[in-house]
Amino acid sequence: MATHMQTFTMIDIGKTAIVDKPIPIPGPNDALVRTTAALICTSDVHTVAGALPVENGRTLGHESVGVIEALGSDVNGFHVGQRVAVNAVTPCWTCSYCQGGYSSQCQGLLGGYKYTAQVDGNMAEYFLVPGAQANLALIPDELPDEAAVYACDMLSTGFTGAENAQIKIGDTVVIFAQGSVGLCATMGARLRGAGRIIAIEAIPERIELARRYGADDIIDYRQGSVVEQILELTGGQGADAAIEALGSPHTFEAALASIRAGGTLSNIGYHGENPEPLKLDLMAFGLGMGDKAIHTGLCRGGSDRMQRIFRLMVTGKIDPTPMTTHRFDFVEVQHAFGLMANKQDGIIKPLITFP
Amino acid sequence: MATHMQTFTMIDIGKTAIVDKPIPIPGPNDALVRTTAALICTSDVHTVAGALPVENGRTLGHESVGVIEALGSDVNGFHVGQRVAVNAVTPCWTCSYCQGGYSSQCQGLLGGYKYTAQVDGNMAEYFLVPGAQANLALIPDELPDEAAVYACDMLSTGFTGAENAQIKIGDTVVIFAQGSVGLCATMGARLRGAGRIIAIEAIPERIELARRYGADDIIDYRQGSVVEQILELTGGQGADAAIEALGSPHTFEAALASIRAGGTLSNIGYHGENPEPLKLDLMAFGLGMGDKAIHTGLCRGGSDRMQRIFRLMVTGKIDPTPMTTHRFDFVEVQHAFGLMANKQDGIIKPLITFP
Amino acid sequence: MATHMQTFTMIDIGKTAIVDKPIPIPGPNDALVRTTAALICTSDVHTVAGALPVENGRTLGHESVGVIEALGSDVNGFHVGQRVAVNAVTPCWTCSYCQGGYSSQCQGLLGGYKYTAQVDGNMAEYFLVPGAQANLALIPDELPDEAAVYACDMLSTGFTGAENAQIKIGDTVVIFAQGSVGLCATMGARLRGAGRIIAIEAIPERIELARRYGADDIIDYRQGSVVEQILELTGGQGADAAIEALGSPHTFEAALASIRAGGTLSNIGYHGENPEPLKLDLMAFGLGMGDKAIHTGLCRGGSDRMQRIFRLMVTGKIDPTPMTTHRFDFVEVQHAFGLMANKQDGIIKPLITFP
Amino acid sequence: MATHMQTFTMIDIGKTAIVDKPIPIPGPNDALVRTTAALICTSDVHTVAGALPVENGRTLGHESVGVIEALGSDVNGFHVGQRVAVNAVTPCWTCSYCQGGYSSQCQGLLGGYKYTAQVDGNMAEYFLVPGAQANLALIPDELPDEAAVYACDMLSTGFTGAENAQIKIGDTVVIFAQGSVGLCATMGARLRGAGRIIAIEAIPERIELARRYGADDIIDYRQGSVVEQILELTGGQGADAAIEALGSPHTFEAALASIRAGGTLSNIGYHGENPEPLKLDLMAFGLGMGDKAIHTGLCRGGSDRMQRIFRLMVTGKIDPTPMTTHRFDFVEVQHAFGLMANKQDGIIKPLITFP
Repeated sequence: MATHMQTFTMIDIGKTAIVDKPIPIPGPNDALVRTTAALICTSDVHTVAGALPVENGRTLGHESVGVIEALGSDVNGFHVGQRVAVNAVTPCWTCSYCQGGYSSQCQGLLGGYKYTAQVDGNMAEYFLVPGAQANLALIPDELPDEAAVYACDMLSTGFTGAENAQIKIGDTVVIFAQGSVGLCATMGARLRGAGRIIAIEAIPERIELARRYGADDIIDYRQGSVVEQILELTGGQGADAAIEALGSPHTFEAALASIRAGGTLSNIGYHGENPEPLKLDLMAFGLGMGDKAIHTGLCRGGSDRMQRIFRLMVTGKIDPTPMTTHRFDFVEVQHAFGLMANKQDGIIKPLITFP
Repeated sequence: MATHMQTFTMIDIGKTAIVDKPIPIPGPNDALVRTTAALICTSDVHTVAGALPVENGRTLGHESVGVIEALGSDVNGFHVGQRVAVNAVTPCWTCSYCQGGYSSQCQGLLGGYKYTAQVDGNMAEYFLVPGAQANLALIPDELPDEAAVYACDMLSTGFTGAENAQIKIGDTVVIFAQGSVGLCATMGARLRGAGRIIAIEAIPERIELARRYGADDIIDYRQGSVVEQILELTGGQGADAAIEALGSPHTFEAALASIRAGGTLSNIGYHGENPEPLKLDLMAFGLGMGDKAIHTGLCRGGSDRMQRIFRLMVTGKIDPTPMTTHRFDFVEVQHAFGLMANKQDGIIKPLITFP
Repeated sequence: MATHMQTFTMIDIGKTAIVDKPIPIPGPNDALVRTTAALICTSDVHTVAGALPVENGRTLGHESVGVIEALGSDVNGFHVGQRVAVNAVTPCWTCSYCQGGYSSQCQGLLGGYKYTAQVDGNMAEYFLVPGAQANLALIPDELPDEAAVYACDMLSTGFTGAENAQIKIGDTVVIFAQGSVGLCATMGARLRGAGRIIAIEAIPERIELARRYGADDIIDYRQGSVVEQILELTGGQGADAAIEALGSPHTFEAALASIRAGGTLSNIGYHGENPEPLKLDLMAFGLGMGDKAIHTGLCRGGSDRMQRIFRLMVTGKIDPTPMTTHRFDFVEVQHAFGLMANKQDGIIKPLITFP
Repeated sequence: MATHMQTFTMIDIGKTAIVDKPIPIPGPNDALVRTTAALICTSDVHTVAGALPVENGRTLGHESVGVIEALGSDVNGFHVGQRVAVNAVTPCWTCSYCQGGYSSQCQGLLGGYKYTAQVDGNMAEYFLVPGAQANLALIPDELPDEAAVYACDMLSTGFTGAENAQIKIGDTVVIFAQGSVGLCATMGARLRGAGRIIAIEAIPERIELARRYGADDIIDYRQGSVVEQILELTGGQGADAAIEALGSPHTFEAALASIRAGGTLSNIGYHGENPEPLKLDLMAFGLGMGDKAIHTGLCRGGSDRMQRIFRLMVTGKIDPTPMTTHRFDFVEVQHAFGLMANKQDGIIKPLITFP
């Protein structure tokens, strides 16, 4: 077996490179996975831009699937050679946050998000899976890697958005932005029984996918006030729920204003780029007494979560693969990353495959 | 305006007739509706068979839509001539049950179910809507009567089954029986994000519709133990949730045995025909400590409920009309009722139209 | 019977007077109540100060109990002479908000709050109860008026705060401010099973009551950063839930910062006085991904709500009467209102009695 | 250090003895605890009677606290000599049941209950704690062992009963039987905000404790139909929730009949002794449509659960120690077990202390 591997690494703020590193050796609770497919995430773009404090030399990536290469001594029920996926969030499952049902906040705020943020990421030829007993998920035979890889972050995050929106059957749900996470939130809203889905988006390729995934109405923010357009579509009532899937102050504020009394704003957008506080307009906030709720969340991890998402793909209830607008070999990852950073060429998600 | 109308009436146990009655006069909180379309419900078959104590001379029916003919003095925001529907359940919305969120149990057990059980039903040329302010629902222009009429009972009851099953995204859900309510529960399970839907059914026409509405696997109870077949399909684990949509002791017991620890059995089948107690096998019941839940429910009513269901139809997310296997004029209602009672001719739901 | 009555009325912004008005005549769904006891609420102070747009000549007050003097023709199950209470919130119970379980938001944002805001209040010798069938609550014989009157707003609002905080058994809960609503939130947190209750307060009389009602720790905001004090008390973790019962930007922001990832901020403070948007500090907000929730709510009304609160008082599980620091005859209401406006003389709640 | 220890062991069905065994050696994820205090549980009486299939030679006990004697290599954040407790339920925290929030059902039905059922129990001078990272709970300095030991099973189980009863503020809650688990359910119902607690019990010592822990009414089953007595106390309505804390078919059936439409029956009684199915009377079951729910549950484990219960004791919100009616040295455990088996001498809980 090889001792070294190629990794896609942040070498400084604003700089990435393919870097050669030793293949890591799994501890008793880890698994070592040989990567077969991965997706590039906008979060990594933010990280490289300096929005998330990460030490130089850290491998990037948190959306990878592959084949088990080695298993720690305490990991049972798996064997070398199985096709597996691991979520971007890899909780310890034992701390008080995990025991209490907040495994994404493992050991504290956002603590379940370990790849890149706390340890090397998995945009590399090999990667470790911490807490493998709970975090390693077998990929069903029927499911190709290029579909399974969407469960690692995109689908789980989008579904978190829909779950936290507390959608009731027949609700009107607005989703702000239809990038890959927003598109997955649209799928999620449909999966929870939304009666009418209103998507805010202006890019034609994304609008087309939004409709495919369940959006009934599209609002173009360039055509005037988004809130007014939503109120007009809903007879002045506003929506029952809104999902913020962009991470901008403007969309957050519009989302709050777009929901009716008793409605829920579910935030999954990352608000780490703009250091200013978000604002709650008093009327939009119902003066603090309007039975409005604001929920926030991070991608949910663990093998059970992954298997639920795989099940939806196996039965054909969802298909994320049309979001793959570009495909690259791992050797081209730098180029792919550049496209993602600049949102060029109608890109939604670039798939990276490994030899 | 006419003073008399034709009604489909139970004249004695086992006997129905078209009976001429005076058109009722709405009280201050009522509406009077001229019927345009209605569905026959198996519940009425049970009622005529004597399962529900009802006085002779009671008009049958609780799934009708029509046009407002007159409005009580305290009903605001509607006008004569509008197309409207009313749910089978017509709560008062003011008693402690209604205030507490259990409007189907208005004033006590099953008390929201007033048509036929407490007052004349609405399989008649005209009918009253009690509590019209909350119970009258405008039918959207885009929605034909023959679709809207499914919101009166079938869809609302099936969705209640799915809601009470507390489905999480990706769950495996088993639905016992695919009559019209079971089919609507299948739609409901899909609307709540079930990952895999297993339907128990043996009649080819129903199996075909079940697949169309989201069933991934069909189990034929004639092929051996249903519970064993479910365990086999789920790797020995059992389902996350089961919906009992038939109302038989056998399916109820199988439903309990088919769910895993932590699972939910949602009952919407009517168990009023067999006077014997239902049984909870101790192992299936987890010795009372398996974190299994049994939920029961009745169709949910009210204009808000109706509008949510209409919304799903208007956006094309559900289409109940393929369940209409037969169509009759109101003058043929006796014949239609006989078909329904005997489940002849591949019948699922017969639509009754009014001149 | 008399035809005129004395009312405590806002005659202009900043001005109140005792004004003579005709005793109102109940419509078919109303009740007319002769007042026996009432409380003055800080909300009325805000109203008179101009924070809530109200037309001049509007009777103030929304916390009154009394005796039925007359009943509308559609109100059943009550009779003249019964002792009754009505909540500050009097929903219609029929609109889509009410049907959906958000009766405090009846017909739209804060719409259940009708007294003073939409119609004459009930700090008067007589008052009307709209929607009396659902909104009139019999006072149990064992319960004196001066206890029952706390159910009208204080207890129901405080409990809303505790309910929305989604307290789990053993949670650590922080409550910001121990005025009458905050004290009721403290009772509410105890009723939901909080393991440790931390109250923020500096006034000795309020601290004493806070301890009596279940507060385990008191933080004085004058002793340094409240957030730091909370973190110190909780080993750096923060609280599981925080209840904002003051309505100030500073306490709102501190409440958000004081909860751990996965925690809930429940707001019941009225934020209508300061026109500036509230701010969500990004770290306190967990960058929008910390599984933190912000819930907002208004006092819950209806006879069922009132009876639940009465039950707790009858069984001795709560006793609000120690909050009554002052007592006045109705003729002294102007003086009492002045004390409340200036928070003089250690006042918490002044009770007004009627001859 | 000693190599052998005394254990209280089941040597055959119906036979127990103090047996000498080697002190176990902790694996990497275990802790070894030297016992200081323990309680005897009725479950062990059932086990010895043969109700639970257990191999001969198994150490009994699952309610013990003590001092850390040794720690496995993968257990962090603890050190030898600390006072600790471990719940009767010791989940793995990694399987799909645990990830899904059903850790009591770890790896399948009742699987979190490992002591005695799957491995040696902890009524012994030393015992192992599996999954110690999550299952070991530090006892606060303020809390004596004899109080902390009630968190191991009694309080956690009783609170599970109250949690699953989904009590709303002001509910009327009936609790069937006031043995130690029932008494803890009474505390739990009070902690969740029950407005009125009705306890079914006939033994004077238990009635006295029930009142102390929050029961407002006591029903003696020897005075006639329990259900009729409950209906009479509730004006014919029935209770909002019932907790079955005995494990008998009669109380289970009465519990179902005693709740109103929309009510919840929460079962924590162990129904393993009587092999017959439990029965659901059709009217009591609301014909399967009464919005009644039946929830079942097992004691919840884990350090987070334990710390929440400790917090309630430290702040004085609960005090279980009055349930300790008897105290014995470990050498007397056989005698204590006999008293518990025969429910002699007014026994509720016997505390066993270790030298």
